[in-house]
Amino acid sequence: MTLEEKLAQLVGFWEKGDGEAVAPLQGVFDVEQGLDEVSRHGLGHLTRPYGTRPVDADERARWLWGQQRRLVRETRLAIPALVHEECLTGLSAWRAATFPTPLAWGASFDPELVAEMGAAVGGSMRALGIHQGLAPVLDVIRDPRWGRVDECISEDPYVVGTLGTSYVRGLQSAGVHATLKHFVGYSASQSGRNFAPVHAGPREIADVLLPPFEMAVLDGGVRSVMHSYAEIDGVPVAANAELLTGVLRDRWGFDGTVVADYFGVAFLHLLHGVAADLGDAAGQALAAGVDIELPTGDAFLAPLADAVRAGRVDEALVDRAVLRALLQKAELGLLDATFDDEPPTGVDLDSPEHRRIAARLAEESVVLLSNDGTLPLAAPGRVAVIGPNADRYDALFGCYSFVNHVLAHHPEAEVGLEVRTVREALATELPMSSIVFERGCAVDDDDTSGIAAAVDAARAADVAVVVVGDHAGLFGRGTVGEGCDRDDLELPGVQRALVDAVLETGTPVVLVLLTGRPYAVDWALTRAAAVVQAFFPGEEGGPAIAGVLSGRVNPSGHLPVSLPRSAGAQPYSYLHPALGGDGDVTNLSSVPALPFGHGLSFTTFAHDELVVEPGASTDGSIRASVRVTNTGDRAGADVVQLYGRDVVASVTRPVAQLLGYRRVHLEPGQSVVVDLDVPTTRLAFTGRAGVRVVEPGDVQLWVGPSCLERETEASVTLAGAVHEVGIADERWTFTAVR
Amino acid sequence: MTLEEKLAQLVGFWEKGDGEAVAPLQGVFDVEQGLDEVSRHGLGHLTRPYGTRPVDADERARWLWGQQRRLVRETRLAIPALVHEECLTGLSAWRAATFPTPLAWGASFDPELVAEMGAAVGGSMRALGIHQGLAPVLDVIRDPRWGRVDECISEDPYVVGTLGTSYVRGLQSAGVHATLKHFVGYSASQSGRNFAPVHAGPREIADVLLPPFEMAVLDGGVRSVMHSYAEIDGVPVAANAELLTGVLRDRWGFDGTVVADYFGVAFLHLLHGVAADLGDAAGQALAAGVDIELPTGDAFLAPLADAVRAGRVDEALVDRAVLRALLQKAELGLLDATFDDEPPTGVDLDSPEHRRIAARLAEESVVLLSNDGTLPLAAPGRVAVIGPNADRYDALFGCYSFVNHVLAHHPEAEVGLEVRTVREALATELPMSSIVFERGCAVDDDDTSGIAAAVDAARAADVAVVVVGDHAGLFGRGTVGEGCDRDDLELPGVQRALVDAVLETGTPVVLVLLTGRPYAVDWALTRAAAVVQAFFPGEEGGPAIAGVLSGRVNPSGHLPVSLPRSAGAQPYSYLHPALGGDGDVTNLSSVPALPFGHGLSFTTFAHDELVVEPGASTDGSIRASVRVTNTGDRAGADVVQLYGRDVVASVTRPVAQLLGYRRVHLEPGQSVVVDLDVPTTRLAFTGRAGVRVVEPGDVQLWVGPSCLERETEASVTLAGAVHEVGIADERWTFTAVR
Repeated sequence: MTLEEKLAQLVGFWEKGDGEAVAPLQGVFDVEQGLDEVSRHGLGHLTRPYGTRPVDADERARWLWGQQRRLVRETRLAIPALVHEECLTGLSAWRAATFPTPLAWGASFDPELVAEMGAAVGGSMRALGIHQGLAPVLDVIRDPRWGRVDECISEDPYVVGTLGTSYVRGLQSAGVHATLKHFVGYSASQSGRNFAPVHAGPREIADVLLPPFEMAVLDGGVRSVMHSYAEIDGVPVAANAELLTGVLRDRWGFDGTVVADYFGVAFLHLLHGVAADLGDAAGQALAAGVDIELPTGDAFLAPLADAVRAGRVDEALVDRAVLRALLQKAELGLLDATFDDEPPTGVDLDSPEHRRIAARLAEESVVLLSNDGTLPLAAPGRVAVIGPNADRYDALFGCYSFVNHVLAHHPEAEVGLEVRTVREALATELPMSSIVFERGCAVDDDDTSGIAAAVDAARAADVAVVVVGDHAGLFGRGTVGEGCDRDDLELPGVQRALVDAVLETGTPVVLVLLTGRPYAVDWALTRAAAVVQAFFPGEEGGPAIAGVLSGRVNPSGHLPVSLPRSAGAQPYSYLHPALGGDGDVTNLSSVPALPFGHGLSFTTFAHDELVVEPGASTDGSIRASVRVTNTGDRAGADVVQLYGRDVVASVTRPVAQLLGYRRVHLEPGQSVVVDLDVPTTRLAFTGRAGVRVVEPGDVQLWVGPSCLERETEASVTLAGAVHEVGIADERWTFTAVR
Repeated sequence: MTLEEKLAQLVGFWEKGDGEAVAPLQGVFDVEQGLDEVSRHGLGHLTRPYGTRPVDADERARWLWGQQRRLVRETRLAIPALVHEECLTGLSAWRAATFPTPLAWGASFDPELVAEMGAAVGGSMRALGIHQGLAPVLDVIRDPRWGRVDECISEDPYVVGTLGTSYVRGLQSAGVHATLKHFVGYSASQSGRNFAPVHAGPREIADVLLPPFEMAVLDGGVRSVMHSYAEIDGVPVAANAELLTGVLRDRWGFDGTVVADYFGVAFLHLLHGVAADLGDAAGQALAAGVDIELPTGDAFLAPLADAVRAGRVDEALVDRAVLRALLQKAELGLLDATFDDEPPTGVDLDSPEHRRIAARLAEESVVLLSNDGTLPLAAPGRVAVIGPNADRYDALFGCYSFVNHVLAHHPEAEVGLEVRTVREALATELPMSSIVFERGCAVDDDDTSGIAAAVDAARAADVAVVVVGDHAGLFGRGTVGEGCDRDDLELPGVQRALVDAVLETGTPVVLVLLTGRPYAVDWALTRAAAVVQAFFPGEEGGPAIAGVLSGRVNPSGHLPVSLPRSAGAQPYSYLHPALGGDGDVTNLSSVPALPFGHGLSFTTFAHDELVVEPGASTDGSIRASVRVTNTGDRAGADVVQLYGRDVVASVTRPVAQLLGYRRVHLEPGQSVVVDLDVPTTRLAFTGRAGVRVVEPGDVQLWVGPSCLERETEASVTLAGAVHEVGIADERWTFTAVR
């Protein structure tokens, strides 16, 4: 292979549409050359052929097959491109199924269902000739001010890891390679601002931020990883060999490809200032372990060629990346592919199976935060449906959905997706009730002129359903999403004023939050008759929420993230040591408005008889069992949450840590004993010497309805010596929930 | 020495008063044994004999001499105790001079004056038989929400280091050992909450948090260091040998004593959970490098004796600490002291020299944030003096002042210190004006009933001077101070409502902020006629502020800390890399309300002709000169600020970094050329390999009125190889400002 042929395999080409911004600073890199010119020596990736414009999939597939044939027939090596696309909440393509956002997966605590969703998404992608999906996001939530919390699963690394790994398994079961984003640290940026520096030490990186990635590599067998834009303690990850090679490949044995986050290689020069020019940036990224530059070859083509020819970058680094790129193509069958077959037509991207999974996941993810008995709604009655998110379909989708990521730029295009808003679904759900609607206000401006009409509507009703929250968008066009950070955690715009005004009518208020991050709504918890938290529940989210309101669906979601006190209390994590919580040393409370794990049902559950098998040792597992009983009068699902605390350790440890969880469906009065086999590696941490260990000693264990409440307790003493954890016994994932 | 005699030398005894809390959790350790019993084998330290009760110094000196004689005559080794006392804003003793707080030192940018203050404080201490002072605090400000910001100097490590080292030199020139607090990391606690975990990597520790300590050790020759309560990345500093021994002693060559922060050894067991019991805590602290347990021997006496006898702690660790403790006593002349002389009487703790220094430092520290020409006040006129801090003497003092630390618990005691409030001083300053006073509201409650009278007073006046801010206190008894953290950065209580109401009268408002942290008062900068920021200016603060208002004093203070946007924008530091600032990747601005270094005068200054001598190399210095001209019509002092930016480096570097500064007094029209010789080590950082280096390449330099404004620019290319910085060329401090 010539140098040009090698470099060609390391880059993508992005045939963008009308210039809408879907990546940071993409305007800087407007490509002048066409695809034919760029790919005359071959092409590594075709970047997002389906996901950036509202064009019919049949048409895009024809174009794609044509390009692949051209690459096979007209380049010397005859290697087609690997095609990648976004797929965070479903394939990012026009009219493709849009599933709940990752926070909703977290709220469901249902790894099996997330795996089903991943498989469905992968099936669509495979059918359209897409080989790699840029999901899931495994960033552990550290600060709800950050706009990309919308794309994350949970503040608990184990929840992120189990659900994220499930998604990987599902997607890859369809033959599509998953991509872990964003390796690593991105979510811990200073003051929750996108791209801001990350203040974290190696222990926090290793024990909090890396585990989900490790699980998806070791248990999920993921085939690709994307570096993060972040700099950690002064070193941009894209130039960090210790992480991209030392941890990922040398320690974990990862043998797939590392792809750049869009423009991330060039950012080493342009934003981070650690590279003198693009060639230097390319050399540093290659040396660190970045194999593929995306979306285009800004640094890896001409600048890198020059640097190699001038001897500033060792061509062996290029060869290493090319080998990985070609091995991935071989795995995908691309080295033998001819594309002589006809392109696919009429692929159903939103099939009944998609809808079934989307509906079930949406239903499982709705979190009932508070309820004075107003829910389920007594029917029939007069219902005032109020609020900017009540009758807006895009309020059901996250920032990386096709609707909010792309279609927002194409007001001329039809949505082409069957979506019922909360208002529409409620009309279906409550056919005998009279429903009036007032928007009241927008999501994010200062116009209060509509509040009076909303108040009138509430006064005339038996109950007011007020649907508020976020509009997900990109780079300042939303209240949440990439580049849409917040320095307060109040409801955006004048929504608080709307809710306050409706509350003051005295009509019972059911507050529904359709948000991409948790907000500081402690004020609503006691004043509203009920508060329902939904995290962008997707195309079946309207009926799911309406079903919870009507009682058709018994809510079973639990908070995958603490409901914050305030922006000024951030960052906060439930995984804090004793000194990150309340105490005599500060006047401020740290207790969030509602704790991690909280979620009500229309029935009640009791947990008792937590029993731990004696004889656990540092290199084994903790066998616990607990009885859970549906003590109410209707069927429902509980999420059994087992927490633990290592009482004395050589470094500070969290006061509560989720050790295992299990979603359990129970009929009224039914009891089951749930067995949880927790590998002691779940209690491992990076010891003083920088090595992951399990230490002997006492561990408190409890089960309760959230991380803060101990309904039944036990303790265990881990016997044995300090156990140094090797890769072989890092059984992170499903061994713990079986 | 017997084991008991050894351990006795490693602990303090605190004969506390009436049980008031002046240390966290001190109640846990109420000592049952009396001093005679505790010290029968000797005693390391006598803890705070002057500083915890309002008792006449003569009486305390008599008691102290009696105790020292008893130790000399009645213990086998005849070694008196080392006596330590707090001295952050002057000796903590009844009726002793109370100087401006460290933030005010920072605002003065006047190291020479801070050294004078240190010498004056040391003189008082020496006269009273005190050997060691628990100051200065060298924690670099990282988050204004933290209550102890009140005790810190600046958010810039170089400003902290130069002023802190000046204090050390001054104090130690009087023969009193200084103690650096709190080594290290304490100020970077999560969400600004006291004792909360510190998220910081080793590079941030080395390059931001450690340098002030290094300067005070290498340039200041400090004799004692106190560990911080903090845990950094999971490891409590009190148990961190890498920091307390590796950095402090092995790298920097420190050969003094390391003392525990009060109860900090026991906290390893009680709060951090890294020690199984007090004996374990003692062993870990000793092994890390803590020599002396303060304030009492809770862990280092019986628990440590048991642990040594049981073989769990090596007695060699005890011996190492004892040797250091006795060497310090030898240095202080204590091994030969007999205390046969008479105790001192009538020592003037608040002499005219104290008052002169206190006045000058107060005057230099007042920062004029904005001014539409209303200041200086036109006299004579009708002045309404308004606000909770206008007529309150304790509003002039910080949390560690005797007044707010101790006297607050003794309402029966006289203050015994001549202090004039802002109101009183203004009456003196403006004898021809008519002055009325209305408090308006309290500092921190929700009573708005007094605002109407304040509004009336403002309406009837030509100008309203509104004095608001903090009340410093301990553990929730203040709005700022130890344990008094904030999760918003609005003015406490209803003070904002008071200011708003007065602003709405249309009478020009001069807003005076007497605070222990910077608040988010951007709203006031344009609406008030002038805003004056004073950081607890001490016993001469009233006249200093009044002097600025009248025009007798031309303000010359500059912000040593950014004036924040909001609590939700924290943490923030002006020393951020490009990606911590504004840009296309986040919708939020990071620009603070006012930048680091800002401060107006009644005259104006121009800076031009920044010239850098060519030929600088990585192992030399940058010789820069700049012309500063007083372009206004009255004399004044400017603080020339030289900033730099390393354009490309192997790790991300700040967009602006203060490289040197110089306070210059200029008559109207006068110009001087200021030479600044900046050792290239000021640009050093911890490179990828973990070693401190100076890298070759381009450095931008500029001088301006704050970190954000480039009034005159230059650049220099550092030639040579990457220079590994050794201790010998870490010329941190005064070499840079000469």
